[in-house]
Amino acid sequence: VTAVRQPIEYADAAPEVRAVYDDIMATRKTDWINNFWKVLAHDPPTLRRIWANIKQVMGPGALDPLTKEMLYVAVSASNGCHYCIASHGAAARRQGMTEAQYSELLAIVGLANETNRLVTALDVPVDVRFR
Amino acid sequence: VTAVRQPIEYADAAPEVRAVYDDIMATRKTDWINNFWKVLAHDPPTLRRIWANIKQVMGPGALDPLTKEMLYVAVSASNGCHYCIASHGAAARRQGMTEAQYSELLAIVGLANETNRLVTALDVPVDVRFR
Amino acid sequence: VTAVRQPIEYADAAPEVRAVYDDIMATRKTDWINNFWKVLAHDPPTLRRIWANIKQVMGPGALDPLTKEMLYVAVSASNGCHYCIASHGAAARRQGMTEAQYSELLAIVGLANETNRLVTALDVPVDVRFR
Amino acid sequence: VTAVRQPIEYADAAPEVRAVYDDIMATRKTDWINNFWKVLAHDPPTLRRIWANIKQVMGPGALDPLTKEMLYVAVSASNGCHYCIASHGAAARRQGMTEAQYSELLAIVGLANETNRLVTALDVPVDVRFR
Amino acid sequence: VTAVRQPIEYADAAPEVRAVYDDIMATRKTDWINNFWKVLAHDPPTLRRIWANIKQVMGPGALDPLTKEMLYVAVSASNGCHYCIASHGAAARRQGMTEAQYSELLAIVGLANETNRLVTALDVPVDVRFR
Amino acid sequence: VTAVRQPIEYADAAPEVRAVYDDIMATRKTDWINNFWKVLAHDPPTLRRIWANIKQVMGPGALDPLTKEMLYVAVSASNGCHYCIASHGAAARRQGMTEAQYSELLAIVGLANETNRLVTALDVPVDVRFR
Repeated sequence: VTAVRQPIEYADAAPEVRAVYDDIMATRKTDWINNFWKVLAHDPPTLRRIWANIKQVMGPGALDPLTKEMLYVAVSASNGCHYCIASHGAAARRQGMTEAQYSELLAIVGLANETNRLVTALDVPVDVRFR
Repeated sequence: VTAVRQPIEYADAAPEVRAVYDDIMATRKTDWINNFWKVLAHDPPTLRRIWANIKQVMGPGALDPLTKEMLYVAVSASNGCHYCIASHGAAARRQGMTEAQYSELLAIVGLANETNRLVTALDVPVDVRFR
Repeated sequence: VTAVRQPIEYADAAPEVRAVYDDIMATRKTDWINNFWKVLAHDPPTLRRIWANIKQVMGPGALDPLTKEMLYVAVSASNGCHYCIASHGAAARRQGMTEAQYSELLAIVGLANETNRLVTALDVPVDVRFR
Repeated sequence: VTAVRQPIEYADAAPEVRAVYDDIMATRKTDWINNFWKVLAHDPPTLRRIWANIKQVMGPGALDPLTKEMLYVAVSASNGCHYCIASHGAAARRQGMTEAQYSELLAIVGLANETNRLVTALDVPVDVRFR
Repeated sequence: VTAVRQPIEYADAAPEVRAVYDDIMATRKTDWINNFWKVLAHDPPTLRRIWANIKQVMGPGALDPLTKEMLYVAVSASNGCHYCIASHGAAARRQGMTEAQYSELLAIVGLANETNRLVTALDVPVDVRFR
Repeated sequence: VTAVRQPIEYADAAPEVRAVYDDIMATRKTDWINNFWKVLAHDPPTLRRIWANIKQVMGPGALDPLTKEMLYVAVSASNGCHYCIASHGAAARRQGMTEAQYSELLAIVGLANETNRLVTALDVPVDVRFR
């Protein structure tokens, strides 16, 4: 029993883990796996489950891939998850996010956190038109 | 000194408050003011300041208006601010957000909150490629 | 086993609960008990423990009583706890907090939540002078 | 497009950035700029906007400067923003905050976070006297 | 496009939604569906996905069902999700959770939130023995 | 006045601090003190108060010691407190927590954070059966 889980490389991975790694690389058309998956690999059922979720939620749908990644970055920035900002920020940049767009995204995250607190603290009643 | 601040209607507002209300309506090309501003109106300097922030951050820029509103909704949903979800959700719908897009937005908010915790709890090291 | 815990009034309280109620009223020089304690009273060890904490932390010390209550309100507003804003807001008003001071307090809570996110998301390095 | 934004020093800053740096130093009667502003400088409109907010909210008003800085520290400690604790903690110390006062501030932050959760989880009804 | 999603009853549900409802009832050996699923039913892919997650994570494993439900309640209480406290609290009670156990659970949630903030604010270095 | 508080070792501690250290070691049947207490030792009243809380809440009661530590870890993981995950994770392992159990605990923390947001954002009405 160890406190910290080291990333498991492809060469050292069990077949059930390699199967997920293979699907990630095939789906993303890339030849490497980032550390999130290599750390989750200590728990194969969770690795499979989280990948199935990401594949479904971030796959083709009603929102374009760039918007999806920017929404992921915004929530991660709001929650202060550095790794998630870095990984989904990289994905957003691959989808074309510019520095100016990233700056605006961060500005919205900051301002929403400010007004969310003001609204909640002041217990602003929801307007009838919004119901 | 009262614990709860009631919305201040235009008819009852001081000139400095009306000036902000007028700018909100002119900027948004609408003829009404939602409760957030009417409650903030008890504190005119904050009313002016927050409106100036919203006007700048949510105004024309590198991101389109729909994406901006969806980012605002995503952060508000992650923070559990019902009023903010309702008001910015309404704004996003006016900009064309469909129910299918809203469903995907919520799915991303939920999943990001899950993986944000897993990543942080497991202290996943940031990949060199992301730096 | 019930899902919701109703406030326990003094008349219905066990002696060990009454003892805490009595100490709260004597310490605060008041003749009533607010609902927080009446709900905690379902669990006497927690009632006693939390009251002992509040009595120590909010009692006389290096900070004046008004500042202490305003700090409590600020954290509660940031966390969105309506009951806590109401109860500690009332205590702060009894200590002399004006509406103008409360407005500034809320403005700081909002702005700190905004800059906290920007700083964390941008991973700003701590200046040597601050160490 | 880079993932991490390095602080921009005065010597390397564009005129619009220098103008903000100059106003920060003049307002604070100091001759240096801390990293928060140097990192925000990659996005001049946000730099200007956030500085205008800080200048208004943290400037002279109904609360004294020490109380304002302590409120900022309390929210930042509650949110776990190390940089913000360090920078506003330094500002509070310049305004006279003692170690004993800081200890009491942290105790309030901790205890408020405890009771905020108990109150919310138990859904304590707001007392009529608090309305 | 409506702002609020009403629960969808079995009688009004599409076949793909009924299939999930049927599996929930069969798995839980019950004859009714709680509102969470009926609201998610507006978005069948999310309904199916979240149910698949809950079924896997909360199903038989290394932790007994009561411990699993109590962990779910603890996180939900810490996050202030009333519905989740109610629904998973009910599930924990069906698994045998007593009022005394629930009181201890809440006490741990409150105290952990207090010490989490103290530890983070004070930036306590992790002991070598814990690594 | 210093910004960072260094751990205070037993040899350097004042008698009132040593008294708490002694009680921690005696209660836990161990011969060392972890950094949390050594940092809190800069503020003896808080050191005594927090230890009294931990001793009461985490001591013998209606829940077994392993379940208590796992609940503490779950809240700490949800809040992203690395030190707390490490220290209470170590305590849970001493009580017998296996890697498989820890994996399930983390999976519940992640999933609860996801569904907590979905439930709150969708404002799911509490079922009558849960009241």
